[in-house]
Amino acid sequence: MRNLKFDEKGLIPAIAQDDDTGEVLMLGYMNEEALRRTLSSGEVWFYSRSRQELWHKGKTSGSRLKVRLVWKDCDSDTILVKAHPTGPVCHTGNETCFFQQLTKQDVEVSP
Amino acid sequence: MRNLKFDEKGLIPAIAQDDDTGEVLMLGYMNEEALRRTLSSGEVWFYSRSRQELWHKGKTSGSRLKVRLVWKDCDSDTILVKAHPTGPVCHTGNETCFFQQLTKQDVEVSP
Repeated sequence: MRNLKFDEKGLIPAIAQDDDTGEVLMLGYMNEEALRRTLSSGEVWFYSRSRQELWHKGKTSGSRLKVRLVWKDCDSDTILVKAHPTGPVCHTGNETCFFQQLTKQDVEVSP
Repeated sequence: MRNLKFDEKGLIPAIAQDDDTGEVLMLGYMNEEALRRTLSSGEVWFYSRSRQELWHKGKTSGSRLKVRLVWKDCDSDTILVKAHPTGPVCHTGNETCFFQQLTKQDVEVSP
Protein backbone atom coordinates (compact mmCIF):
# COMPACT_ATOMS: atom_id res chain seq x y z
CA MET A 1 0.00 0.00 0.00
CA ARG A 2 1.34 3.33 -1.06
CA ASN A 3 3.39 5.18 1.52
CA LEU A 4 2.03 3.47 4.59
CA LYS A 5 4.05 1.58 7.17
CA PHE A 6 2.40 -1.49 8.61
CA ASP A 7 4.18 -3.16 11.53
CA GLU A 8 5.75 -6.62 11.55
CA LYS A 9 2.28 -8.11 12.05
CA GLY A 10 0.88 -6.20 9.07
CA LEU A 11 -1.06 -3.80 11.27
CA ILE A 12 -1.25 -0.04 11.73
CA PRO A 13 -2.85 1.69 14.72
CA ALA A 14 -5.95 3.72 13.88
CA ILE A 15 -7.40 6.39 16.14
CA ALA A 16 -11.14 6.97 15.83
CA GLN A 17 -12.30 10.49 16.67
CA ASP A 18 -15.84 11.86 16.77
CA ASP A 19 -15.79 14.41 13.96
CA ASP A 20 -18.53 16.50 15.56
CA THR A 21 -17.46 16.62 19.22
CA GLY A 22 -13.71 16.05 18.78
CA GLU A 23 -13.84 13.30 21.38
CA VAL A 24 -11.28 10.53 20.92
CA LEU A 25 -13.35 7.36 20.85
CA MET A 26 -10.99 4.40 20.61
CA LEU A 27 -7.78 3.02 19.19
CA GLY A 28 -8.00 0.01 16.92
CA TYR A 29 -5.70 -1.69 14.46
CA MET A 30 -6.13 -2.05 10.72
CA ASN A 31 -4.49 -4.33 8.22
CA GLU A 32 -4.40 -3.38 4.55
CA GLU A 33 -7.79 -4.92 3.86
CA ALA A 34 -9.45 -3.19 6.81
CA LEU A 35 -8.10 0.16 5.65
CA ARG A 36 -9.20 -0.54 2.09
CA ARG A 37 -12.72 -1.37 3.25
CA THR A 38 -12.79 1.68 5.52
CA LEU A 39 -11.94 3.96 2.62
CA SER A 40 -14.21 2.27 0.11
CA SER A 41 -17.30 1.51 2.24
CA GLY A 42 -17.56 4.68 4.28
CA GLU A 43 -17.70 2.71 7.54
CA VAL A 44 -14.78 1.81 9.79
CA TRP A 45 -13.26 -1.67 9.67
CA PHE A 46 -10.55 -2.87 12.01
CA TYR A 47 -8.54 -6.03 12.34
CA SER A 48 -9.25 -7.71 15.67
CA ARG A 49 -5.97 -8.83 17.20
CA SER A 50 -7.72 -11.07 19.72
CA ARG A 51 -10.02 -12.77 17.24
CA GLN A 52 -7.50 -12.48 14.38
CA GLU A 53 -10.11 -11.48 11.86
CA LEU A 54 -11.50 -8.49 10.02
CA TRP A 55 -13.92 -6.60 12.21
CA HIS A 56 -16.66 -4.40 10.83
CA LYS A 57 -17.01 -2.03 13.78
CA GLY A 58 -20.59 -2.10 15.05
CA LYS A 59 -21.69 -5.12 13.06
CA THR A 60 -22.83 -6.80 16.29
CA SER A 61 -23.56 -3.78 18.50
CA GLY A 62 -25.06 -1.61 15.81
CA SER A 63 -22.75 1.25 16.78
CA ARG A 64 -20.98 1.89 13.53
CA LEU A 65 -18.47 4.57 12.69
CA LYS A 66 -19.39 6.52 9.57
CA VAL A 67 -16.21 7.78 7.96
CA ARG A 68 -15.84 11.51 7.34
CA LEU A 69 -12.10 11.97 6.77
CA VAL A 70 -9.06 9.72 7.04
CA TRP A 71 -5.55 10.96 7.72
CA LYS A 72 -2.10 9.43 8.07
CA ASP A 73 0.58 10.91 10.28
CA CYS A 74 3.94 12.38 9.28
CA ASP A 75 5.70 9.02 9.68
CA SER A 76 2.94 7.15 7.82
CA ASP A 77 2.62 4.69 10.68
CA THR A 78 -0.61 5.86 12.30
CA ILE A 79 -4.11 6.46 10.95
CA LEU A 80 -6.65 8.99 12.22
CA VAL A 81 -10.28 8.48 11.23
CA LYS A 82 -12.69 11.31 11.84
CA ALA A 83 -16.08 9.69 11.95
CA HIS A 84 -19.67 9.92 13.07
CA PRO A 85 -20.60 7.20 15.61
CA THR A 86 -24.14 5.89 15.28
CA GLY A 87 -24.15 4.79 18.93
CA PRO A 88 -21.88 4.22 21.95
CA VAL A 89 -18.50 3.13 20.62
CA CYS A 90 -17.26 1.26 23.68
CA HIS A 91 -18.34 -2.30 24.46
CA THR A 92 -19.03 -1.08 28.02
CA GLY A 93 -21.77 1.18 26.70
CA ASN A 94 -19.74 4.34 27.14
CA GLU A 95 -19.57 6.83 24.29
CA THR A 96 -15.78 6.62 24.33
CA CYS A 97 -13.37 3.90 25.44
CA PHE A 98 -11.44 6.54 27.40
CA PHE A 99 -13.53 6.98 30.52
CA GLN A 100 -11.03 6.02 33.22
CA GLN A 101 -8.63 8.66 34.40
CA LEU A 102 -5.03 7.90 35.39
CA THR A 103 -3.28 9.67 38.22
CA LYS A 104 0.10 9.57 39.92
CA GLN A 105 -1.21 6.95 42.31
CA ASP A 106 -1.70 4.54 39.43
CA VAL A 107 1.99 4.51 38.60
CA GLU A 108 3.51 4.50 42.05
CA VAL A 109 6.02 1.75 42.52
CA SER A 110 4.64 -0.92 44.81
CA PRO A 111 6.54 -1.28 48.08
CA MET B 1 2.05 -0.97 36.92
CA ARG B 2 -1.46 -1.22 38.21
CA ASN B 3 -4.05 -2.32 35.69
CA LEU B 4 -2.18 -1.34 32.55
CA LYS B 5 -1.25 -3.65 29.72
CA PHE B 6 2.10 -2.98 28.11
CA ASP B 7 2.90 -4.95 24.96
CA GLU B 8 5.64 -7.55 24.54
CA LYS B 9 8.15 -4.73 24.13
CA GLY B 10 7.01 -3.06 27.35
CA LEU B 11 5.27 -0.25 25.48
CA ILE B 12 1.77 1.20 25.36
CA PRO B 13 0.48 3.54 22.62
CA ALA B 14 -0.33 7.05 23.82
CA ILE B 15 -2.50 9.49 21.89
CA ALA B 16 -1.77 13.17 22.48
CA GLN B 17 -4.74 15.50 22.03
CA ASP B 18 -4.86 19.28 22.27
CA ASP B 19 -7.09 19.83 25.27
CA ASP B 20 -8.24 23.22 24.02
CA THR B 21 -8.94 22.58 20.33
CA GLY B 22 -9.64 18.83 20.49
CA GLU B 23 -7.17 18.25 17.68
CA VAL B 24 -5.39 14.90 17.74
CA LEU B 25 -1.71 15.80 17.66
CA MET B 26 0.30 12.59 17.51
CA LEU B 27 0.61 8.99 18.60
CA GLY B 28 3.66 8.02 20.61
CA TYR B 29 4.64 5.08 22.78
CA MET B 30 5.36 5.05 26.49
CA ASN B 31 7.11 2.54 28.68
CA GLU B 32 6.41 2.46 32.40
CA GLU B 33 9.04 5.08 33.18
CA ALA B 34 7.77 7.45 30.47
CA LEU B 35 4.24 7.20 31.85
CA ARG B 36 5.48 7.69 35.39
CA ARG B 37 7.38 10.82 34.38
CA THR B 38 4.38 12.09 32.38
CA LEU B 39 2.14 11.78 35.42
CA SER B 40 4.63 13.16 37.91
CA SER B 41 6.26 15.97 35.91
CA GLY B 42 3.24 17.47 34.17
CA GLU B 43 4.95 17.21 30.76
CA VAL B 44 4.67 14.36 28.28
CA TRP B 45 7.44 11.80 28.00
CA PHE B 46 7.52 9.05 25.40
CA TYR B 47 9.80 6.15 24.68
CA SER B 48 11.42 6.56 21.28
CA ARG B 49 11.28 3.23 19.45
CA SER B 50 13.82 4.37 16.85
CA ARG B 51 16.33 5.76 19.33
CA GLN B 52 15.41 3.25 22.03
CA GLU B 53 15.49 5.80 24.79
CA LEU B 54 13.23 7.93 26.95
CA TRP B 55 12.14 11.03 25.09
CA HIS B 56 11.08 14.20 26.83
CA LYS B 57 8.79 15.57 24.11
CA GLY B 58 9.96 19.01 23.05
CA LYS B 59 13.29 18.90 24.84
CA THR B 60 15.05 19.70 21.56
CA SER B 61 12.33 21.56 19.67
CA GLY B 62 10.95 23.45 22.63
CA SER B 63 7.44 22.29 21.75
CA ARG B 64 6.44 20.56 24.94
CA LEU B 65 3.14 19.00 25.86
CA LYS B 66 1.79 20.24 29.19
CA VAL B 67 -0.36 17.52 30.69
CA ARG B 68 -3.94 18.35 31.60
CA LEU B 69 -5.60 14.93 31.98
CA VAL B 70 -4.52 11.35 31.34
CA TRP B 71 -6.90 8.52 30.55
CA LYS B 72 -6.64 4.82 29.86
CA ASP B 73 -9.05 2.96 27.62
CA CYS B 74 -11.49 0.20 28.55
CA ASP B 75 -8.94 -2.52 27.75
CA SER B 76 -6.15 -0.71 29.61
CA ASP B 77 -3.90 -0.98 26.58
CA THR B 78 -4.02 2.60 25.25
CA ILE B 79 -3.33 5.98 26.86
CA LEU B 80 -4.94 9.31 25.97
CA VAL B 81 -3.20 12.46 27.13
CA LYS B 82 -5.09 15.71 26.93
CA ALA B 83 -2.45 18.38 26.88
CA HIS B 84 -1.52 21.91 25.99
CA PRO B 85 1.19 22.11 23.33
CA THR B 86 3.63 24.99 23.74
CA GLY B 87 4.44 24.96 20.02
CA PRO B 88 4.03 22.90 16.82
CA VAL B 89 4.01 19.25 17.84
CA CYS B 90 5.17 17.73 14.56
CA HIS B 91 8.82 17.66 13.54
CA THR B 92 7.68 19.01 10.15
CA GLY B 93 6.56 22.21 11.83
CA ASN B 94 2.87 21.38 11.54
CA GLU B 95 0.65 21.78 14.58
CA THR B 96 -0.41 18.16 14.29
CA CYS B 97 1.27 15.09 12.81
CA PHE B 98 -1.98 14.32 10.96
CA PHE B 99 -1.89 16.70 8.02
CA GLN B 100 -1.98 14.26 5.09
CA GLN B 101 -5.37 12.96 4.00
CA LEU B 102 -5.90 9.42 2.74
CA THR B 103 -8.32 8.60 -0.04
CA LYS B 104 -9.44 5.54 -1.94
CA GLN B 105 -6.67 6.11 -4.46
CA ASP B 106 -4.07 5.52 -1.76
CA VAL B 107 -5.23 1.98 -1.17
CA GLU B 108 -5.92 0.84 -4.70
CA VAL B 109 -4.22 -2.39 -5.53
CA SER B 110 -1.36 -1.81 -7.94
CA PRO B 111 -1.83 -3.42 -11.35
